[in-house]
Amino acid sequence: MTGIEDYTRQYGLVDKIDAFGYLDYLAANPDAPRKHGKVVLVTADTPLKASRGEGKTTTTIAMIDALRERGIDAAAVLRQPSMGITAAGSKGGASGGGKALLTHPEIVDWGLCGEMGAIEAAQNLLVSFAEKAIDDGLLDTVLVPRVSEVPSRSLRQIAVDRGKGNVPERVVLTPTCELMQIVVLSRSMDEIAERVSKMVAGTKDGKAVTFGEFIDLWRITGILTDAVKPAKTETVNGSPVYVHGGPFANVSLGIPTLVSVDLACALHDVVIVEAGYGADAGAQKWLDIACREFGAQWPAAAIVVTRASTWRDDPALSWRYPFHVQRLEGLGIPTFPLINLWEGEDDQVPALEQTAAELGFRKPVIGNLFRDGGDALAPQLDDFVAAVTGEEETDVPASHRGEPLVDNVKWVASHAYGVPAERVIEKAGFAESLADARRLCESAGIALDDLALVAVKSPATMTDNDAAPADDRTVTLKKVEVHAGAGVVHVNLTTSLTTPMPKIV
Amino acid sequence: MTGIEDYTRQYGLVDKIDAFGYLDYLAANPDAPRKHGKVVLVTADTPLKASRGEGKTTTTIAMIDALRERGIDAAAVLRQPSMGITAAGSKGGASGGGKALLTHPEIVDWGLCGEMGAIEAAQNLLVSFAEKAIDDGLLDTVLVPRVSEVPSRSLRQIAVDRGKGNVPERVVLTPTCELMQIVVLSRSMDEIAERVSKMVAGTKDGKAVTFGEFIDLWRITGILTDAVKPAKTETVNGSPVYVHGGPFANVSLGIPTLVSVDLACALHDVVIVEAGYGADAGAQKWLDIACREFGAQWPAAAIVVTRASTWRDDPALSWRYPFHVQRLEGLGIPTFPLINLWEGEDDQVPALEQTAAELGFRKPVIGNLFRDGGDALAPQLDDFVAAVTGEEETDVPASHRGEPLVDNVKWVASHAYGVPAERVIEKAGFAESLADARRLCESAGIALDDLALVAVKSPATMTDNDAAPADDRTVTLKKVEVHAGAGVVHVNLTTSLTTPMPKIV
Repeated sequence: MTGIEDYTRQYGLVDKIDAFGYLDYLAANPDAPRKHGKVVLVTADTPLKASRGEGKTTTTIAMIDALRERGIDAAAVLRQPSMGITAAGSKGGASGGGKALLTHPEIVDWGLCGEMGAIEAAQNLLVSFAEKAIDDGLLDTVLVPRVSEVPSRSLRQIAVDRGKGNVPERVVLTPTCELMQIVVLSRSMDEIAERVSKMVAGTKDGKAVTFGEFIDLWRITGILTDAVKPAKTETVNGSPVYVHGGPFANVSLGIPTLVSVDLACALHDVVIVEAGYGADAGAQKWLDIACREFGAQWPAAAIVVTRASTWRDDPALSWRYPFHVQRLEGLGIPTFPLINLWEGEDDQVPALEQTAAELGFRKPVIGNLFRDGGDALAPQLDDFVAAVTGEEETDVPASHRGEPLVDNVKWVASHAYGVPAERVIEKAGFAESLADARRLCESAGIALDDLALVAVKSPATMTDNDAAPADDRTVTLKKVEVHAGAGVVHVNLTTSLTTPMPKIV
Repeated sequence: MTGIEDYTRQYGLVDKIDAFGYLDYLAANPDAPRKHGKVVLVTADTPLKASRGEGKTTTTIAMIDALRERGIDAAAVLRQPSMGITAAGSKGGASGGGKALLTHPEIVDWGLCGEMGAIEAAQNLLVSFAEKAIDDGLLDTVLVPRVSEVPSRSLRQIAVDRGKGNVPERVVLTPTCELMQIVVLSRSMDEIAERVSKMVAGTKDGKAVTFGEFIDLWRITGILTDAVKPAKTETVNGSPVYVHGGPFANVSLGIPTLVSVDLACALHDVVIVEAGYGADAGAQKWLDIACREFGAQWPAAAIVVTRASTWRDDPALSWRYPFHVQRLEGLGIPTFPLINLWEGEDDQVPALEQTAAELGFRKPVIGNLFRDGGDALAPQLDDFVAAVTGEEETDVPASHRGEPLVDNVKWVASHAYGVPAERVIEKAGFAESLADARRLCESAGIALDDLALVAVKSPATMTDNDAAPADDRTVTLKKVEVHAGAGVVHVNLTTSLTTPMPKIV
């Protein structure tokens, strides 16, 4: 009998799984055994700054250890951290900590099995092909950016062919590039090839030219052969963890690959999915892009992580955490506050519980997950387990496909950031950028408004000034960028950096 | 009992071997079983152009299949091809062809286990650290170049921080970078760390500043954890093949890692080592850098591959093949001409044998290796087997360490290219470049003349004009570049491109 082991290969200290192949097998064999796991989204309060995590990965790991301790077949799906950032020391690793840890955190933090490097090479090769197309008279302007896995502020704006063409270019971080988005959203290698063929390489006489018009797609899919396979590792307690896809939900998708979540759902009963930064970033992207537009599973529950200090000690920003919890509940998702205590904070539990009650939250799950791991959570999960083992199925809310882009942005500003449409402001140049994007799409034979919206923003803010009084908060629209292959359109908001190149510390 | 299997892990379709660990184990356990394999160098005629191989990899694979057919425990050590070049289509793969093939050529050709990507990320991270050092006032000029695995002519010269600093930089291909050289030459992770610490990051007030003065070395060695492990795969006939290190012996080392050859010699009786491009490139680097300066094994025999057409059909260049064969024989290395026939060339065998006899060669090995694989060779290898199973040990010729750099270049020009010292010409600017390099070394506390010479040149020529009459051939010295961490100094000759960025085809 065929099973998942036939699609699994050891890859050093982890396994890699041919998820495309296994899911194809399940589709072709309706009677083959499989599970129908429920997705639980782990998200967080908006962080006070980009480099300060609330503990989502630690929570995700502790949660599956706790659920398995209770006899539930739970697994986690994580995104691969950006090695450049980790190695540079701008941010800690993304593999948990203390007792809530992966067996080989160093593998996950330091490049895994070369997935990010392969995506980097493939997107950079596309840029080289676009340059060749200029030589061949097929293009006059390259639009697809080069990528780097290593952060460097000076790469944000570069000129290539210095001394001759002096062609201005920009370099984006590998996890944020269109090819990473394609890997995250595609459910087969054929879909990847199809999406790469629809990527806009650049323009000729103002009209979009796609890669499908002039490259051999096998040159790109060949590079991605292993990169499209989710990695499987485990926690120090033996709980299964899948790692696939890139970070940075503030400026890109920042969610695990859809295929890694589909795979985990076919193999386990509860699948904890980590989405990046605050609920306004990763969770918004999972719900409004992955679920509404790309067929991902609507979560059976959500966990919103915060620290005791984040939640209570900055009064001007303390509206954000309850806003996130109530927004997710309002969508019909049972939403559990989880407060990740640090050393010396155990005595705050009664006060935190009281605040949660005053805010009308479900009873919060509270624990020092670094110190105690899943043991701190297991006894507190009765309500959570009831929510995720129930039979109710929620319908996925309707797609926004076809709605005018600016209306779509206003909807996100209102629902995910709490800023009504009349306080969504267009910066000088935005209208022109929007018109350019619309023309580019028309020339490529696609409709801009059919693309899924990716809000690009700072990880630490939802509005132009989160500390302003509620009625004064605004969201400013800055520019539009089409990723036709991925099927998304970026709109830059608030204080976003188009290309985050964190300072090395 | 401990064995090689304890240092081997499956890595998808290949194995990866902790060669540093296994060789440490052998060193610490003198009674542990091991072999003392003889190294055989496979090299070639100078190719007519860079993109046209003579069939070295095909020969290497056919040779081990033939030797094993004869009951000899033979293995091959190959370099990993540059995926950027392979994927771009500028050059075929480097995993053999026809019946002389690896089981999974696609793995080797398309990024292997991410080794090149890891080295790229690590060297680019060094550049980012150097930029940070400029911010911190520790450096005023960055000397270490960024790298790319993907070829693009427009990256040869770039400006970063466009619109502000407009800092000129250059980008080199990953396989040619100093960090790749360090991986090729080092025999432990400690040696890698030590060599990275000695890399010149740049200068401050004209004085060299090394990375050891301001970075945490674990950030680099962490990235290289898996990249330093040789991959093991096999031919379609089951013969063992190790793959490790990068190509481009014309502009860098272009030899397999020393540790992969040491490993293979501890496990097999005959180890066929492939060195890149012609004998004037890869073989010259193996002999004069790896053996003379870095303790690699002097070859017990050499095979010089050519095609029937290369050898005979360009009269102006026909001096090169006999020159290579005779030079290697002159070094005391039993040297076997091997003529790799193409379809329709079988009837040329008698004429080729006669030409070889007239030139005083050993009896050539001749076969269509693509069509017939090792079967074409096995019956012809009596003399070869006698040479590599003999007891003679040749002393490695003396190191050139301490000799003035220009004398060293003249020695190479004379011995490896056939151009006497008086026809080695210094181009305008060379003397200044040499003086700069000498000053840089002095400020770093090292002696320029202690570094091993890497001749940087076109893969298709040895002199300024190989088609000129022998007495008119010259070699022009263009510039000097120090790689203090790798312990080498580059001297650019003839028509070399400092940074080869082949056109994508």
